[in-house]
Amino acid sequence: MKNSFQNIALIGKIKSAEVAVPLLRLAEFLTARGLNVYVDTLTAEHIKDALYPALPLQELAAKVDLAVVIGGDGTMLNIARTFSPHHIPLIGVNQGRLGFLTDLTVDNMLDNIAAMLAGEYVTERRLLLQASVMRAGVEVFSGLAFNEVVVHRSQISSMVEFEVRIDGEYLYNQRADGLIVATPTGSTAYAMSAGGPILHPGLEVLELVPVCPHTLSNRPIVINSSSVLELLMHRTGDIRVRLDSHTSFDLQLHDTVIVTRHPGHAHLLHPVGHSYYHTLREKLLWNQSL
Amino acid sequence: MKNSFQNIALIGKIKSAEVAVPLLRLAEFLTARGLNVYVDTLTAEHIKDALYPALPLQELAAKVDLAVVIGGDGTMLNIARTFSPHHIPLIGVNQGRLGFLTDLTVDNMLDNIAAMLAGEYVTERRLLLQASVMRAGVEVFSGLAFNEVVVHRSQISSMVEFEVRIDGEYLYNQRADGLIVATPTGSTAYAMSAGGPILHPGLEVLELVPVCPHTLSNRPIVINSSSVLELLMHRTGDIRVRLDSHTSFDLQLHDTVIVTRHPGHAHLLHPVGHSYYHTLREKLLWNQSL
Amino acid sequence: MKNSFQNIALIGKIKSAEVAVPLLRLAEFLTARGLNVYVDTLTAEHIKDALYPALPLQELAAKVDLAVVIGGDGTMLNIARTFSPHHIPLIGVNQGRLGFLTDLTVDNMLDNIAAMLAGEYVTERRLLLQASVMRAGVEVFSGLAFNEVVVHRSQISSMVEFEVRIDGEYLYNQRADGLIVATPTGSTAYAMSAGGPILHPGLEVLELVPVCPHTLSNRPIVINSSSVLELLMHRTGDIRVRLDSHTSFDLQLHDTVIVTRHPGHAHLLHPVGHSYYHTLREKLLWNQSL
Amino acid sequence: MKNSFQNIALIGKIKSAEVAVPLLRLAEFLTARGLNVYVDTLTAEHIKDALYPALPLQELAAKVDLAVVIGGDGTMLNIARTFSPHHIPLIGVNQGRLGFLTDLTVDNMLDNIAAMLAGEYVTERRLLLQASVMRAGVEVFSGLAFNEVVVHRSQISSMVEFEVRIDGEYLYNQRADGLIVATPTGSTAYAMSAGGPILHPGLEVLELVPVCPHTLSNRPIVINSSSVLELLMHRTGDIRVRLDSHTSFDLQLHDTVIVTRHPGHAHLLHPVGHSYYHTLREKLLWNQSL
Repeated sequence: MKNSFQNIALIGKIKSAEVAVPLLRLAEFLTARGLNVYVDTLTAEHIKDALYPALPLQELAAKVDLAVVIGGDGTMLNIARTFSPHHIPLIGVNQGRLGFLTDLTVDNMLDNIAAMLAGEYVTERRLLLQASVMRAGVEVFSGLAFNEVVVHRSQISSMVEFEVRIDGEYLYNQRADGLIVATPTGSTAYAMSAGGPILHPGLEVLELVPVCPHTLSNRPIVINSSSVLELLMHRTGDIRVRLDSHTSFDLQLHDTVIVTRHPGHAHLLHPVGHSYYHTLREKLLWNQSL
Repeated sequence: MKNSFQNIALIGKIKSAEVAVPLLRLAEFLTARGLNVYVDTLTAEHIKDALYPALPLQELAAKVDLAVVIGGDGTMLNIARTFSPHHIPLIGVNQGRLGFLTDLTVDNMLDNIAAMLAGEYVTERRLLLQASVMRAGVEVFSGLAFNEVVVHRSQISSMVEFEVRIDGEYLYNQRADGLIVATPTGSTAYAMSAGGPILHPGLEVLELVPVCPHTLSNRPIVINSSSVLELLMHRTGDIRVRLDSHTSFDLQLHDTVIVTRHPGHAHLLHPVGHSYYHTLREKLLWNQSL
Repeated sequence: MKNSFQNIALIGKIKSAEVAVPLLRLAEFLTARGLNVYVDTLTAEHIKDALYPALPLQELAAKVDLAVVIGGDGTMLNIARTFSPHHIPLIGVNQGRLGFLTDLTVDNMLDNIAAMLAGEYVTERRLLLQASVMRAGVEVFSGLAFNEVVVHRSQISSMVEFEVRIDGEYLYNQRADGLIVATPTGSTAYAMSAGGPILHPGLEVLELVPVCPHTLSNRPIVINSSSVLELLMHRTGDIRVRLDSHTSFDLQLHDTVIVTRHPGHAHLLHPVGHSYYHTLREKLLWNQSL
Repeated sequence: MKNSFQNIALIGKIKSAEVAVPLLRLAEFLTARGLNVYVDTLTAEHIKDALYPALPLQELAAKVDLAVVIGGDGTMLNIARTFSPHHIPLIGVNQGRLGFLTDLTVDNMLDNIAAMLAGEYVTERRLLLQASVMRAGVEVFSGLAFNEVVVHRSQISSMVEFEVRIDGEYLYNQRADGLIVATPTGSTAYAMSAGGPILHPGLEVLELVPVCPHTLSNRPIVINSSSVLELLMHRTGDIRVRLDSHTSFDLQLHDTVIVTRHPGHAHLLHPVGHSYYHTLREKLLWNQSL
């Protein structure tokens, strides 16, 4: 990861024409400072007359030193999966309400980014997951996840059952709607809905949170992020693996899903003074009472 | 509901040839006592050479005074939905492990049923639900449920959102994977997996248990079974209503699901001394520790 | 319970001088309408110069047709325990923030009470509990509870263990910090903190909610309010029974706590249009998200 | 920590005469191998005629290379607090049922310890906490905890309220019965009863689990074990701090409890093949169903 930024990608929320105004404002601001601004091809459609070079996401990731994302946490998830393997740091600007990953606002972004370009920022490293599906010894699917990898029944019919192993050791047979393997980033997303604890985003851990387990005695478990997880579909075919509500893949009987951490990290840049706990309280109404 | 039983339906678990032996044993036992034995047409296939009259379930329900079900809780759920509107009491025999609804075993059924035919039994009344789907003022689906009515996203994609009203009053907008409206019978089924409390089966109440709600501050609520529930799909079409893991129906945007209690009850007959709390501890390992 | 009200008790929050102003305002308002106003002796100290007859709570309960309580839910709990056996309906005015039991405000009380005196109100019946402690065959303690009866270890030392029976039948041995037997009214109080479900206040049910049970497999249970509960201190003496955070009594080894519903109800009067679900959402931030 | 063991402390469960037989058996076994056996002065009382040198725990900790504890997890907690600052590894033998910390049994201990003395063991490092109470700038209490540090109301009266800070940053005001700061070791003890997740014992994290919080929207949080926690009694005096169910100290209004990790670790020695997940399933019936 570089420490000074000359080539900057600006990426807007997909299919969201209203990012054009703040994005162009930011582009002019950066250009005026002698920095090179690039956009991705989808965002370029919203700012047609502007003359910033447009590249597909993968090429963009190979070219820039920094990416600024304008949108919500969902957009950041997508960009983090693409840009993190290239070690490109990310700044998130939320269009609407405060996000966990998008902590600047359209209103305060210029001042904050000016300070951050001057070196006044904190870097937060967050881990990513990679999942692959093995079928008869062959990898038939793989992908990255920033929030979570979920195996989940694909029909709302009967429950599914599968076996979980950690580092080769038997953990349990899970009869449930599904199982979530979440990063700390994902601990405030689907894993939270399923009853999992909040994990501070800087931790190098994962959590396993069952979805509607068919037993009274389950409880989420937090494990080391270096663990190798195997989810074995011994008994169930009517099930799907899903990465970040983004990609999903239908599993078959005897498939194995392997989940490990990705060797790289996502790097989020925050203004000095950024408070994760503040976001927890504001966004989740955590521990709130009247 | 009659108090003496002359015409008895014997119903086996569907597609389960191994019910033939205990079912024939029970049929002979009843015939020897001068009682009339009937079977349903699907069960009849497993006992081909036997000469008991076979009728479709609906005709059977109109003809008999009592039904004995050999199978598991799933079979009992199905039969209860069909027979309860006809006020036919049910006795459940579990083939395998102890059930909540099937409390006799193949081994002890003859002694128990002998005593029960002699009047030594307790009757347990359990409530049923009925659900209907209104679309542009027209009912496009309806059905009965003994465990629960669930609305649930049909794809494991994004969350769904719908509004809930009780007796015409706004309750909440639910953003979640789904919402379970469970009877006391269903409180130990899917509602339990989703975190709902156990409801004693004799209570005239329902529980509303969200599935993976997108908030920290939900909590199941128990309401009167006389309530009229409306689930309004203001914002979501990609959702399905499901009755007892048995029937499901795809909803569209602006559909309303109406859930009320069915006017009748299911009547379960138990041997004297039957203990619901014993089943809770044995079957769910409730409050168990080593 | 009478339907027209001539003699009205006004009762303020204990040790709370600031109730004097609204209380006197209400007293004048009622007197001007030809009604007789009484106060309790503790409240009388705050309004010394006023000439309303002052009586101890018990005598007041025997004399009046209606009581208006100005304070919070805690004050209402206390008054409900005293007045409910006399079938005196209660109106609650909250001094501060919205309460579950005190739904009028100081600002809107005159208009609302005027309407209610004219017969425009809804009556809500709520059940109460009675608890007694049996020691060697002798009752050594008894009392009423409106929210809950709790048995709880008295020291924060080791866990306690006791047996629970329902209607003479063994339920479980509970190893925990304690056990809460809550009314529907109490389901939004301590039982909620311990993880219990919300019970609609009109239900004739109780809930048993363990406090920090020493097992993964507990789950609250909802039972009929007609049940007789016995909590048997077979193994534990270092434990206390507590009623509504108000009264507590130290238990000894071999004591039995018997909890039943009180034969009477509390009667709360609400303005027409009162919404319990609204209070749930407003006061508990139930199902709230940003 | 040394890798070969010459001087070995044998420590029995306190006030437990029945440890004498296995303890003497183990002592003879070790002596026969030329190793030096020591006992603590309390254990010595149970084996009066035996001639092993007896020392107080603190002196023993300074003298030996290894301690074998015969008892349960509670005994191990106590010894870990005393011996860990001296870097003495521990082996746990359970007298009764399987423990998380005592994984040998009296029956298999000789074979296992023989193998372990030959170097066939795995070492598990577990973190410890230290807590101190500051009053008007002066430390008035301090101690170590292996499971958890708890602040808890001392009377079962009203709720308490205190502020929590992490590394100087405001986390929340907690209105609750109490708050548990648990190590991974403690995650299967009191924190589990209060609803906390299971933390793999090798993680360098802590969890904060409220006890009966007075809000619907709490959720446990897992944080880095390097965090400095401050619990500030701004509003509450009727509260106590407790370490491992062992030591407790009454707090006053304006006290601050500071919790940090202890710089050392406890070192537990296990036979090769020891499985934490197996213990989870066996001891807690984790994820068990019939």
